[in-house]
Amino acid sequence: MAPHPFDPVTPDELRLAVKILENAFPGVALRYKVIDLQEPIKKDVVPYIEAERLCVSLPKKPARLLMAMFHRLDTKSFMKALINIDTRALLHVKEIPKDLQGPCDADELIEMEQLCLEHPAVKAEVEKMKLPPGVTVCSDPWIYGTDDPNETRRLLQFYMYLVDTEDPQHNHYSLPCTFSPVFDGNTKELVRMDYLSTGSDHSTKPTQPWKPVKAVQYAHNLLDEPTRTDLKPYIVQQPEGPSFSVNGNFVHWQKWRFHVGFNYREGMVLYGVTYDRRNVFYRLAVNEMTVPYGDPRAPYHRKQAFDIGDVGFGVTANQLSLGCDCLGHIKYFDGYRIDSKGNPVLLKNVLCLHEQDNGIQHKHTNYRSQAATVVRNRQLVLQMICTVANYEYIFAWIFDQAGNIELEVRATGILSTMPIDEGVSVPFGTNVAPGVMAAYHQHIFSMRIDPAIDGHNNTVIYQDSVPMPDDPVTNPYGVGYVQETKVIKRSTAADLSVADARVFKIRNDNIINPTSGKPVAYKLHALPSQLMLMHPRSFNVKRAQFATRPIWVTKYRDDELYAAGEFTNQSKGSSGVEQWVAREDNVENTDVVLWHTFALTHNPRPEDFPVMPMEKISIMLRPDGFFEKNPALDVPQSTQSFNQSSLHISPEESEAKLCSCPPTSKL
Amino acid sequence: MAPHPFDPVTPDELRLAVKILENAFPGVALRYKVIDLQEPIKKDVVPYIEAERLCVSLPKKPARLLMAMFHRLDTKSFMKALINIDTRALLHVKEIPKDLQGPCDADELIEMEQLCLEHPAVKAEVEKMKLPPGVTVCSDPWIYGTDDPNETRRLLQFYMYLVDTEDPQHNHYSLPCTFSPVFDGNTKELVRMDYLSTGSDHSTKPTQPWKPVKAVQYAHNLLDEPTRTDLKPYIVQQPEGPSFSVNGNFVHWQKWRFHVGFNYREGMVLYGVTYDRRNVFYRLAVNEMTVPYGDPRAPYHRKQAFDIGDVGFGVTANQLSLGCDCLGHIKYFDGYRIDSKGNPVLLKNVLCLHEQDNGIQHKHTNYRSQAATVVRNRQLVLQMICTVANYEYIFAWIFDQAGNIELEVRATGILSTMPIDEGVSVPFGTNVAPGVMAAYHQHIFSMRIDPAIDGHNNTVIYQDSVPMPDDPVTNPYGVGYVQETKVIKRSTAADLSVADARVFKIRNDNIINPTSGKPVAYKLHALPSQLMLMHPRSFNVKRAQFATRPIWVTKYRDDELYAAGEFTNQSKGSSGVEQWVAREDNVENTDVVLWHTFALTHNPRPEDFPVMPMEKISIMLRPDGFFEKNPALDVPQSTQSFNQSSLHISPEESEAKLCSCPPTSKL
Repeated sequence: MAPHPFDPVTPDELRLAVKILENAFPGVALRYKVIDLQEPIKKDVVPYIEAERLCVSLPKKPARLLMAMFHRLDTKSFMKALINIDTRALLHVKEIPKDLQGPCDADELIEMEQLCLEHPAVKAEVEKMKLPPGVTVCSDPWIYGTDDPNETRRLLQFYMYLVDTEDPQHNHYSLPCTFSPVFDGNTKELVRMDYLSTGSDHSTKPTQPWKPVKAVQYAHNLLDEPTRTDLKPYIVQQPEGPSFSVNGNFVHWQKWRFHVGFNYREGMVLYGVTYDRRNVFYRLAVNEMTVPYGDPRAPYHRKQAFDIGDVGFGVTANQLSLGCDCLGHIKYFDGYRIDSKGNPVLLKNVLCLHEQDNGIQHKHTNYRSQAATVVRNRQLVLQMICTVANYEYIFAWIFDQAGNIELEVRATGILSTMPIDEGVSVPFGTNVAPGVMAAYHQHIFSMRIDPAIDGHNNTVIYQDSVPMPDDPVTNPYGVGYVQETKVIKRSTAADLSVADARVFKIRNDNIINPTSGKPVAYKLHALPSQLMLMHPRSFNVKRAQFATRPIWVTKYRDDELYAAGEFTNQSKGSSGVEQWVAREDNVENTDVVLWHTFALTHNPRPEDFPVMPMEKISIMLRPDGFFEKNPALDVPQSTQSFNQSSLHISPEESEAKLCSCPPTSKL
Repeated sequence: MAPHPFDPVTPDELRLAVKILENAFPGVALRYKVIDLQEPIKKDVVPYIEAERLCVSLPKKPARLLMAMFHRLDTKSFMKALINIDTRALLHVKEIPKDLQGPCDADELIEMEQLCLEHPAVKAEVEKMKLPPGVTVCSDPWIYGTDDPNETRRLLQFYMYLVDTEDPQHNHYSLPCTFSPVFDGNTKELVRMDYLSTGSDHSTKPTQPWKPVKAVQYAHNLLDEPTRTDLKPYIVQQPEGPSFSVNGNFVHWQKWRFHVGFNYREGMVLYGVTYDRRNVFYRLAVNEMTVPYGDPRAPYHRKQAFDIGDVGFGVTANQLSLGCDCLGHIKYFDGYRIDSKGNPVLLKNVLCLHEQDNGIQHKHTNYRSQAATVVRNRQLVLQMICTVANYEYIFAWIFDQAGNIELEVRATGILSTMPIDEGVSVPFGTNVAPGVMAAYHQHIFSMRIDPAIDGHNNTVIYQDSVPMPDDPVTNPYGVGYVQETKVIKRSTAADLSVADARVFKIRNDNIINPTSGKPVAYKLHALPSQLMLMHPRSFNVKRAQFATRPIWVTKYRDDELYAAGEFTNQSKGSSGVEQWVAREDNVENTDVVLWHTFALTHNPRPEDFPVMPMEKISIMLRPDGFFEKNPALDVPQSTQSFNQSSLHISPEESEAKLCSCPPTSKL
């Protein structure tokens, strides 16, 4: 059966696309960077999914389009093509301007990493370190960043580390080297050898012999300390199976229905989200993130990864294992990418789906009768874990039974580390191990919300809670407060305001909630956070305008999916939301998109090394007058017969185990 | 064995205290309001718990003191006494000034509720409603609030509702009446009959015949809609038992040790929290909350409950049931209170303790070898659920394996409702059912943190993340940022700042972390929130100064436990943190207390009725240079053999179940 419009690209489609491209360029060797689903044209998709939602006869599927990025090895041109899979037609192909760089791909990174290590100039630097036997060098290729508006080369900066064990989980980030080669990704030439400051100022010195120090390891088999033995198993059993059902990438759970999308760039995407067959969201995804570092010294000033645009969360998504990443009954979803030769590569188990229990959803005890109603908060979690070299991001979309959708982001993994001399500290970083500094940095995410609140014509508003004027007639005791509503009529950026309890809502002005008498709406529980704190003149800010304001509202257009624009790798400026809001489109009662920028300012703690206990942030989409009353009223009562908990009785002898103290004193 | 200094009051102690009081007032009838543990004198307790922590010979226990509040029925005086249980001595007894009111107690509320319903004036109002057979009236006694600086009577305001079913879980809040009697709690006399505005202005009208309308119910057996049938069991099994051990009220779990305290006022208290035998916190509790309402009209302007100070979370704590309120292996703790006659009342299962799984704690995948370390985030949860008439609060202290302590607060239960005429809406409330308006309001909490970061001499600081000056030498690319530190030297209030990523830390300047070279510290992940938005001239603000600033730092003094002061019921002003900071005590490297005020501005949604899906907020206490590296490294790897998850395979036939749509169209 042909894929659903929201289905991820299939290996057959990838092979067909390669064949179409090879036919279009006879005799020309091509190197593939990306082939993936082109976001389907919304106006073509909506009638199809509306028919699905309403269970009526389905119209023709919209065209299945694929996007390809590849290099011509004859002309060295970097090309982008659009392919219609249904008609096997190459719709168009164009050369990408020289000042734009495509994302890094998996094969490129491996190839360049090897090339770096084998380069004579790199070997010469390694030689200077006079490493003892058994200690080797590894290189982490880094997105180059930007500091020159005239740069057109494709560049990669390598941060170099030592490896003092053959264990596959060696923590080389604990042993950073002080030299950092830059290579041209196209010509494969060494462009420059950078040296890293290891003191408290910007000065550098030549590579020195290494003073041996033991790496701080995270893998259990490499730890000096024993593993805890007092953690008892905690097993989630679902004897009747899960409450969800899955058909291909279509999921149905507790009145929610949605389609799981997957692409090389954003990884996990939610499509066509409905509740009880009412439209709620057309598309939800984390569409971009940027990670600028606060160390002012070269070459660190260029450390500004756009992990989605520069590489992609789809291609860096972990292949998950049963029992390691989730508890309970787990459904996995696969993806596919292309390799540089045009072969489909299976990305197995890159998304997982499972239920979890999140405590009490609602409870009320009648204090007179002591009769209580308790309903637990069962959730459905769709999760993706991405490894971007040293660092890990865990993204989860969490659905509950009261109409809430939560985006949870966990940051974990290993800090990006820099070498530092003994006894030195810097005001823009934390010493996390001997000779290791972790610079302050920010993780700035963009969440794209394409709403469909009971239909596709929606309006974004915000409401502040403000005191009523101090008036002797209307507010005689000075306690009154009201909501002030601001309707966003033209595409724009906007700010949050904790002091006003400001809340952004997406509402459908055409449908009135009979209970409240107000338009149906969902609200965004945004995350108030410090946004990019670099200087406006910095390339960091120029390249990531989305990271300077928490809220953006645009009118929907196909192809406007990524907040910093399509090409972020070595970008000189952004070409995203800031340009789209500048159109000042009407965004009232029309097809709108709401973008939320939120961030973690991460000034590392010693506790964040050698692997970081997760830091969790969360955004909620919550019905606000979408339903006439609590939609979870019909969730069954929480009972012992259903939950089968067990009672703990403290054993008499437990005292002895707790403390080897002498007996307590008498009164 | 004699109780531990942190143990809750025992029934024997209650009986002994009553006996001591009866002996002290021979022939005088006493009516008891509160008898409970007097907070032990810190300087006496510390040597004792230090000996426990260090496993050395224990000194004499500090004196076991009880506090009693009671009425002399002869003189009508309201008294407070301090009793030494060890010596059976009444240490002192004093009369409380007439302008202070003690909290409401359980017997008082039941008695007054009955008295109200039987009063002829109330019955006369009920008569006017011309209720059909089977419809009865109930009354919710409310804390009176304050609007007169000269008031010295003990007053209660009753909000009246109709009951249209004999079911013990009737939702009378769906049927609010329009009259509201005020009674004197001492003389039992009717003070005044208030009438509620039901239009859009402040006008009122006499009680009208009731226009029958069906109550919106929440209890499953009263719902019109069927209960969901597609939720499958989700069972937490701990075949080897829990990872915690409990001895009395002493808990040991995963390097954490602490004492569970319980009292009538705060309910759940944590004492003597240590990690791996290092001191972390001396005492943690939610110590006060106030709930002001934004409806400007009389008598609603007086709706400002102090749920802890006016009544008490200990006395309103739910008696929890196995399998309803938690999953897994559950330990319950009991408490005791006194009744008005001086009998101990068992508060069974008022706290529960269990473990939960909170997803991934840390993960890193070596992208070269694909070898991954995954450690899950097991948590220990101590939970209390309080029913304050219509509303429920769920408090949980959550410990994890990386040194984090989280305070989670869930708001659920039933909105406080007001009557409203058909077709009317007001700007300070939401219509949530026919004839029912729920006014905007705030829940403003105070969390008291008595730290012991590696000892009792601590310092509170805050740090902002700020751009480096735009200097061509030190910050040539404009990307540098640093932390600016402000040490709080004198007791004061302080503000949060999202824009500066401001973080408050409690540090011990006497102990340096060898990794970072900085003093050991914990940080407070505060909750930035809108604080009290009523006018400064309002009694709401005057009575709850703590609710106007998010951070307060005081020097420790015994008896300074409650942010709004000891007596909040009908208080005319606060006598809490605002007075204690005004002393401008030295708070650097001494015994300090950090108070955090956080709030929910709750503008009700239709979805919040008839029972509210929980709204969750969370505060974290997180080590920041307390440990030399990630303290959870030694938590075992997450494995399938330990976790026993199961794999979901989508059945072939699932498609049919998902949708009864016609077959999908061909390409």
